[in-house]
Amino acid sequence: MLQRAQCAAFGVSLSGWQVRPIPADRFLSDILGSMRSLLGSIVLPAFRRPFRGWRELLTLASFALLCPAPGLAAGAGADLLPQPRMWTQEPGFLRIHNGFRTFHRGPADPFVDQLLERFTNQLAHRTGIRFPAPRATEDYTALLRVETRSATPDYPHYGVDEAYQLEVSAGHITLRATHGYGLRHGLQTLLQLLETRTEGQGFAAIRIDDAPRFGWRGLQIDPVRHFLPIPLVKRQLDAMEAMKLNVLHILFSNDQAFRMESKRYPKLHQMGAEGQYYTQQEMRDLVEYARLRGIRVIPDFGVPTHIASWLVGYPELGARPGPYSLIRSFGIFHPTFDPTREETYQFLGNLFAEMATLFPDQYIHIGGDELTGKPWRENPDIQAFMRTRGMAEVQDLQVYFTRRVLSLVEAQGKRAIGWDEILHPELPPTILVQSWQGQKALAASVRRGNAGILSAGYYLDLMLPAEEHYGVDPLGGAGADLNAQEAARVYGGEACSWAEFITAENLELKLWPRLAAIAERLWSPADVTSVDALYRRLPKVLDELEWLDVSPRQVQRRMLRRALPAGTSMEAMLAWLTVFEPVKRYLRADSGEYTVFRPLNRFVDLLWPESLEARRFRLRVEAWMRSPQPSPALSSEVRNALLVWRAHHAGAVAALQSSSLLADGVDVAIEADETAALGLEALGWMEAGRIPPSAWVDAARARLDRWRSQRREVLNLLVEPVTLLVETAASPGTHSAPRVDAR
Amino acid sequence: MLQRAQCAAFGVSLSGWQVRPIPADRFLSDILGSMRSLLGSIVLPAFRRPFRGWRELLTLASFALLCPAPGLAAGAGADLLPQPRMWTQEPGFLRIHNGFRTFHRGPADPFVDQLLERFTNQLAHRTGIRFPAPRATEDYTALLRVETRSATPDYPHYGVDEAYQLEVSAGHITLRATHGYGLRHGLQTLLQLLETRTEGQGFAAIRIDDAPRFGWRGLQIDPVRHFLPIPLVKRQLDAMEAMKLNVLHILFSNDQAFRMESKRYPKLHQMGAEGQYYTQQEMRDLVEYARLRGIRVIPDFGVPTHIASWLVGYPELGARPGPYSLIRSFGIFHPTFDPTREETYQFLGNLFAEMATLFPDQYIHIGGDELTGKPWRENPDIQAFMRTRGMAEVQDLQVYFTRRVLSLVEAQGKRAIGWDEILHPELPPTILVQSWQGQKALAASVRRGNAGILSAGYYLDLMLPAEEHYGVDPLGGAGADLNAQEAARVYGGEACSWAEFITAENLELKLWPRLAAIAERLWSPADVTSVDALYRRLPKVLDELEWLDVSPRQVQRRMLRRALPAGTSMEAMLAWLTVFEPVKRYLRADSGEYTVFRPLNRFVDLLWPESLEARRFRLRVEAWMRSPQPSPALSSEVRNALLVWRAHHAGAVAALQSSSLLADGVDVAIEADETAALGLEALGWMEAGRIPPSAWVDAARARLDRWRSQRREVLNLLVEPVTLLVETAASPGTHSAPRVDAR
Repeated sequence: MLQRAQCAAFGVSLSGWQVRPIPADRFLSDILGSMRSLLGSIVLPAFRRPFRGWRELLTLASFALLCPAPGLAAGAGADLLPQPRMWTQEPGFLRIHNGFRTFHRGPADPFVDQLLERFTNQLAHRTGIRFPAPRATEDYTALLRVETRSATPDYPHYGVDEAYQLEVSAGHITLRATHGYGLRHGLQTLLQLLETRTEGQGFAAIRIDDAPRFGWRGLQIDPVRHFLPIPLVKRQLDAMEAMKLNVLHILFSNDQAFRMESKRYPKLHQMGAEGQYYTQQEMRDLVEYARLRGIRVIPDFGVPTHIASWLVGYPELGARPGPYSLIRSFGIFHPTFDPTREETYQFLGNLFAEMATLFPDQYIHIGGDELTGKPWRENPDIQAFMRTRGMAEVQDLQVYFTRRVLSLVEAQGKRAIGWDEILHPELPPTILVQSWQGQKALAASVRRGNAGILSAGYYLDLMLPAEEHYGVDPLGGAGADLNAQEAARVYGGEACSWAEFITAENLELKLWPRLAAIAERLWSPADVTSVDALYRRLPKVLDELEWLDVSPRQVQRRMLRRALPAGTSMEAMLAWLTVFEPVKRYLRADSGEYTVFRPLNRFVDLLWPESLEARRFRLRVEAWMRSPQPSPALSSEVRNALLVWRAHHAGAVAALQSSSLLADGVDVAIEADETAALGLEALGWMEAGRIPPSAWVDAARARLDRWRSQRREVLNLLVEPVTLLVETAASPGTHSAPRVDAR
Repeated sequence: MLQRAQCAAFGVSLSGWQVRPIPADRFLSDILGSMRSLLGSIVLPAFRRPFRGWRELLTLASFALLCPAPGLAAGAGADLLPQPRMWTQEPGFLRIHNGFRTFHRGPADPFVDQLLERFTNQLAHRTGIRFPAPRATEDYTALLRVETRSATPDYPHYGVDEAYQLEVSAGHITLRATHGYGLRHGLQTLLQLLETRTEGQGFAAIRIDDAPRFGWRGLQIDPVRHFLPIPLVKRQLDAMEAMKLNVLHILFSNDQAFRMESKRYPKLHQMGAEGQYYTQQEMRDLVEYARLRGIRVIPDFGVPTHIASWLVGYPELGARPGPYSLIRSFGIFHPTFDPTREETYQFLGNLFAEMATLFPDQYIHIGGDELTGKPWRENPDIQAFMRTRGMAEVQDLQVYFTRRVLSLVEAQGKRAIGWDEILHPELPPTILVQSWQGQKALAASVRRGNAGILSAGYYLDLMLPAEEHYGVDPLGGAGADLNAQEAARVYGGEACSWAEFITAENLELKLWPRLAAIAERLWSPADVTSVDALYRRLPKVLDELEWLDVSPRQVQRRMLRRALPAGTSMEAMLAWLTVFEPVKRYLRADSGEYTVFRPLNRFVDLLWPESLEARRFRLRVEAWMRSPQPSPALSSEVRNALLVWRAHHAGAVAALQSSSLLADGVDVAIEADETAALGLEALGWMEAGRIPPSAWVDAARARLDRWRSQRREVLNLLVEPVTLLVETAASPGTHSAPRVDAR
């Protein structure tokens, strides 16, 4: 019986390539079919150089991660991400062929022209069809007819009309919007609807009426800690467009570097960037690239602190005497402007004026967070300045500084954004608050009259799962109590990607697809909250992004290729890795072992922030534990997963031990194997219908607690599901649902 | 026993992640280990949404295609491709860390400076390490010390010194060459030696003395039939550099398009390219990009025929009255210059003069092939011209034309390249012959005094396997009889990639890794001929190219993602596809169904020109048939491969039938399944120790003949190995080696 059971573990039904384990008998008869009579007794001895190829087929097909879950009707409105406000699937299918043409009805509009040209190129790219005559001169000859009512504003702004209505029929497509900033979303929706069927490549008929819930849907990037080259940033803009995000907030300066060329104060980038900065021409080009995608670019030059890199070239502006040098580590540091000197404001005024020529957006970010105050408290001149003006605390001096800076920003016709701390009763409500502190702080700000956006809950560098971000609503928590007027001042949110552990190499792995969850939260109706539906679509997001050359999968493969010792199977390693994630929140940074120079090319760096596979396994265990009836199917599934995973322990650990870049993972790998073994022991007790002795339970709990409390860079994701198995095994009764509640 | 055998089919030994099937008993004990006692009778019912992840581990690891064959010591000299002239592995390992620095001893040389900077960036990219101070000011502080004796010539030329000597010790690396054109090869060799070990990332100690066998190692690309954008061409230059190729020959014009901007004759690109052409600025930039990699760029403006695209804008130069239009189909067409008019030569002289300012190379390609002669024979003025000059044949007129064109080329201080037909006893030996006709034609040319390069045998568009190209030596065949002086006029060879079925999308899939085999043939010593060693390294070439963003695997995945109906497993499909290849030589083109507009996005287009997996399977079958003893291991392996492959037939065909882009493959897929079934029948006879009845043999042969002679776009690669199985089964005796000879 043992052999048959083991066979069953590999049994699959192949009908329609949907995957399900099937009993051993049926498996054998399916596979062997009429050849049964030809097969006799088989002995398969060891063999050194086997054919490797087709034999992998059976199981590759069966357990491929990319295969969408059953019941997923691709191309339907249900697959769209972000979900539109309203959609209705209709009968019919519109086939794309090389006679595809577009027609625009509405005021002449270069923005719309480039949109249609770019869309046509994207469609050609995705279909592999060349369209010899992409523009039509008559409405009725065009497959895609777009209509606008007014010219697209030169530059997008908060609140600009982004709504669109899309109708796909079997005959043609109609897309309507006020202007280009709505059209572009409709075109991206259309690209997501593209599918290949028997009848051809094209679109299922559908009617969509869509508009964003929030007008500010941003991503903050941090090229300071690790530089992000322009082509990489452009690819993220492409991906943002696909996900209907509309603000790119670029952190240009911090203690570690100043990344923007200044012609007025060239020592900023010359002495503050070690050669890695954006030229003005590059930035103009990037801003235009973003504009064509309806994405605003907001520059961030945070003051009065986080400015060590400024003071390297201009030490005379600092609150302490120089010289200053670039800071290589991460954290909160003291270098701060001297807010008492007029030269500081002249400098900032000139810099803002220079930057205003590059960034047409209405907003500029001026930071304002994490002032230590120490250099101000220790500088006698500054203390004298404060006394003269009756300022008791450095916070009062910050208010003075902020007020002066605000006037410089306003002199450029712009508005300022600052972090929570920048607010003060004495400051005008024109400042927009970016809240890293949370919904409560944000609610307080908007009650006070300021507009605000939420970033707390959207920090991608914390390596949290998509569902955690997805559950955070700018109008949730304390925001739910706001009145309509106050709520209208909650403009939206911004995902942040602070780059202590993000590099040009791994950026895409660390942003996507989790950023897509935030994009949907900010775009879709508040009641679009199904976590299951979210996770069903995330693999599709990854496919979508591949067309834009944004490929987290490729990032991981590349990093793994570097790290693996010669002769190791990459495919095996990729699958084995799925029980690990990087440690969450700031536990990694807190080790204090990192600088901007330390390579981020190790085990922890090449892990997905969230393992979708481990999540699925945990959900299977939970489903089994909750099942009102004992479920042999779930039981077998869980056990087989653990068995198969364990079977690779020796091979994986050997690979880790043979690579200087993977050796960090050896300890957690051994623990994960022990965790899996413990899980199998718990399963054994349950299947035997016995309650384990309390000594076993105590020992198991102690080990799980130890594994759970390890302060490592890498998390062993088996701990939680195995804890559930152990606790269920330890409680009386059958191993079905009631036990879970008994814990 | 049946069940146990089936288990054994999935059995693997996991030690060191080397893969070998093992007997069922050992498999079970390995996997189940101490958990055996916990496992009882297991029934695994059908289940709709199983966990898909870890369970795939076991077999993914076991049969992954990327896993190098056992015995492959990565990073060793044996892995280098092209193989160096001489190398000796030494003890020791040089670890790379962020103190890595380079030092150059030799004359100041901007070419060397850029080489070292680019190498350092590549090393940073591959290691994930940032090198804060890449250049050293003192020899002894540098990990990489390069030495040159003279300044690098401004532009590379045939015969330029490309030799280098590389020594890696545990302490440092020394690289010596005459100048930069040798150095760059040494640096690429070094990058290929990079590996990750327990002690870190770095290089195993080695001594290499290397130089190319041939000085002309080229790739011809054809952006005429399908346009190839500049960034794609640049990536191929990167890959060419890695493979030590040194000539990029660009076909700029043909009947279908004229792809190069001309300011002198703007109607050439304006009316001849439908907007898809290279600007002069882009081409200057590309030529410089190539120069920095030591790669020459040779422009090709073939005359007097293949010029329909020229005549669209300048019909007055044609031998027939206009108007002319771009030709959309493929083949040999009539449009030809009027060789009797002086305007023709003025035009060509001016154009060559203009192009000479863009292309510094000593050579320009002037075509000369495939003249139909018809327009000349039918034009009374041309006939009169011929009569006046006593020319009997159009070939005489072509000689006249060629002589005039040669003088125009020489007026620019350049030399001409032409195809075989251009040669004529009356023409001077200064013309370099590119031979598409073969080694015999090439030998005749060099005997005559012309220099020549071989392209016959290197046509990548014929979709032939790497080994076929690898077996063609410019000095093989008739070339082997040349004396030393004649042989010295065989400069090397050029791979051609005529683009009737090559597009920007699939180029990399169709070039690599087969082009690497040609690169080695042209670089390495004549006695480097092991086909096994070649195929052992080709997967490593693909890994190498991934670092340059040249990724045939990604191309195939992208095309498959487009084509697959929603919900199909890509991984399964990728593996299943391995028994198919595109039809060889010109059988596809001969269908006459293709034009430049027809999308190349179907089943045949996304196949690798050569399936390495199918090759391995065929070799296993051949090895078994040749084995002097009956080999149950080989027998089981072959049978299991066929069983597993067959198990996917229904799923794969269902996917094909559901996709308009894959439907073309349904017939050949069904045939492949029938072929596999026939192979299993043959195995059954052999294993039963019986000779099949002659009716069975006759029927089997008839079916195989039918499948073999199908004129499809896609080949069923099971036909040949199954033929071998059937023929072996049909011959008397045991199913071991003697039978093969008995056929």
